[in-house]
Amino acid sequence: MKFLRTIKVEEFKEILDSISSLKNEEELINIHECYNRIISRNIKSKIDVPHFRKSRMDGFAVIAEDTFGAEEDNFIKLELIETIRAGDIPKKKINKGQCSYVATGAAIPENANAVIMVEFTESDGNTISISKALTPGTHVVNIGHDIKKDDTIIKEGTLINLATIGILASSGISNIWVFKRPKVSLLSTGNELVTHDIKNLEIGKIYDVNSVVLKKAIENTGVDVKFLGIVKDNYEELKSVVNKALENSDIIIVSGGTSKGEGDLGPQVLEEYEDIEILIHGVKIKPGKPIIFAKIKEKLIFILPGYPTSALSCFYVFIENFLRKMSGFPLKDKFSKVMTVGERIYSTVGRNEFKAVKIQEKDGEQMIFPVKTGSEAISTMFYADGYVEIGELESIIERGDKRRIYFFQ
Amino acid sequence: MKFLRTIKVEEFKEILDSISSLKNEEELINIHECYNRIISRNIKSKIDVPHFRKSRMDGFAVIAEDTFGAEEDNFIKLELIETIRAGDIPKKKINKGQCSYVATGAAIPENANAVIMVEFTESDGNTISISKALTPGTHVVNIGHDIKKDDTIIKEGTLINLATIGILASSGISNIWVFKRPKVSLLSTGNELVTHDIKNLEIGKIYDVNSVVLKKAIENTGVDVKFLGIVKDNYEELKSVVNKALENSDIIIVSGGTSKGEGDLGPQVLEEYEDIEILIHGVKIKPGKPIIFAKIKEKLIFILPGYPTSALSCFYVFIENFLRKMSGFPLKDKFSKVMTVGERIYSTVGRNEFKAVKIQEKDGEQMIFPVKTGSEAISTMFYADGYVEIGELESIIERGDKRRIYFFQ
Repeated sequence: MKFLRTIKVEEFKEILDSISSLKNEEELINIHECYNRIISRNIKSKIDVPHFRKSRMDGFAVIAEDTFGAEEDNFIKLELIETIRAGDIPKKKINKGQCSYVATGAAIPENANAVIMVEFTESDGNTISISKALTPGTHVVNIGHDIKKDDTIIKEGTLINLATIGILASSGISNIWVFKRPKVSLLSTGNELVTHDIKNLEIGKIYDVNSVVLKKAIENTGVDVKFLGIVKDNYEELKSVVNKALENSDIIIVSGGTSKGEGDLGPQVLEEYEDIEILIHGVKIKPGKPIIFAKIKEKLIFILPGYPTSALSCFYVFIENFLRKMSGFPLKDKFSKVMTVGERIYSTVGRNEFKAVKIQEKDGEQMIFPVKTGSEAISTMFYADGYVEIGELESIIERGDKRRIYFFQ
Repeated sequence: MKFLRTIKVEEFKEILDSISSLKNEEELINIHECYNRIISRNIKSKIDVPHFRKSRMDGFAVIAEDTFGAEEDNFIKLELIETIRAGDIPKKKINKGQCSYVATGAAIPENANAVIMVEFTESDGNTISISKALTPGTHVVNIGHDIKKDDTIIKEGTLINLATIGILASSGISNIWVFKRPKVSLLSTGNELVTHDIKNLEIGKIYDVNSVVLKKAIENTGVDVKFLGIVKDNYEELKSVVNKALENSDIIIVSGGTSKGEGDLGPQVLEEYEDIEILIHGVKIKPGKPIIFAKIKEKLIFILPGYPTSALSCFYVFIENFLRKMSGFPLKDKFSKVMTVGERIYSTVGRNEFKAVKIQEKDGEQMIFPVKTGSEAISTMFYADGYVEIGELESIIERGDKRRIYFFQ
């Protein structure tokens, strides 16, 4: 064991910040699956976009020089030789005195170098009269105007958003190398936990919540999470599941099994590993004091409190953005606001507390109120809009004080 | 045809606001699938949570009255009769002068009405000495403290977030009635469009982008979107796909086929339907002027411009929050900020323009610059950070002017 001590919140954050992103392997995936993934290689376009000269308007493709001198009182007549719709391959090249109809997006025929909008023309059978002179290039989108062949269009490390997909799609790239998502194994520990298929709960048993809620919260950070099941408070069983998780994942998150009472096997199991480096054992916060963070070689392990509300607060405060960093997702701004406290809030001296609070109107003002259900109640999470941080030395926040509320989600 | 005119942006928004949410059918889904879905029936808890009295601390379950008078200099001795771990069923009832060890979360044995924390006790074999008097109820979580049986825990219409899942999971509810997601059919029209499996693009052809980008953008609003394919500019073909879409979906989104040139069949096909009500045909904006919004009985149809950048801007400005309303997703705040314009921006008089802009630093200040690639370029979307709205009568925004930028995403 390298060290084992209760640290402050800021120290925890610093330790997590010092962990560098995982070196993930690559995988080739389809463009339809690539939203919010991270590109693992610079991508070059294999084609020019557009790869043909095309018209920006509905009009007539002309040789610009043919239009010189055209005005409203001096029409110039051209012979219409072809109609080119979007998607058509032009068949005829334009000679002096000729033009072809081109729809918006249609290919410009050979020799033409400008497009006159329909609005500045009059049509009489195959004769088109033009009332405006054009400079070369007018309304013509050149080859590679948008994207040039062999240009690097997306760089390694880019998070793929809608615009990135647009660039890839228009370059005809349908399979993309991306970094594999970090693999996270989640397990719940506790003899009291049962799965949802149990219909009649015995005395002493409760439904496991973290396998659903914490799993989804983890999933939302862009990692690949797998729930390994409920593990009894049994040394051999826990050790065997942790071994399996170490083999198959980059990060292991255990809920439960960290507090000081009997039957808390997490730390005992971890101590056994030869290469274990326990970086954090306990943080001066409530709820969530008994959080553990350790490394075994390249693998990372978190042990969180078992109560869902505590586990989820710890997750929000420490782990959410850490996992986002690991997966390459943009970090989440923890949205916060200073508001008036509407009712006295009690806290425990000696550790920071993240106190669940709700917003309610009082005397025509939106104020902060404590949620009183306690960290063991799942409904705390439900009623709370966010939390306030209470300092180590504070035992009371008085009504009327101003506090910053950090909103959940 | 009920009416057919070009309207202003605000009118469009009002028309969309007046459309009420779809009356969707229900479906029963598993709790693991329910994140971000809308609950379709009030849900009552079938159990009390907790459904047994449990301990909030590691300690000894006692009869509070037995501890009266206990102090640091006046220990009271109790007989330890059982050890109850979390998940255990207590086997023995507490009689006067007795206690049982209870772990945090463990069931309180019959007759006990308080828990004394381990810290206030001394243990000598089966004799526990207590140094503190307790009031009845201390550290005991009562039955139903968190959630009461038969109480409505979640109301119809609730968007399921993590906290909601927590409540459902702890009440043992594993299948949930939710509203079906609105079904959206998406189709791309245009002879010029080809799919990504085509490796050698002919002159005149381009890769379809909307089937990937617009599809994902639509999906992100919480609806169920299906891409029906690329439809050629052929009346019969388009009509047949629209018919199919009308049968299988609530909302149809067509990209392409609305502009004034040849080969624009969208409006022609729509006109044929007996019950068609074309609510919008053209909006005074650029890009996206030719947008169409129509109703056929209960079904809604949008026809958007074909250029991906135009289609996506229209989507962001008008349709994104409309679809979110339909699916029950929270509306997206269109995040915006007033900034200085760093370079002259040109616009077309006579219609509002949503001009794609990017943010760059100039003279040490973050400023707004126009993206000059044009609405036909996919890279416009890529380079742009957002857009500025330019009024109908403005032709130029000068350098140094202050403008509000609406950020994409």
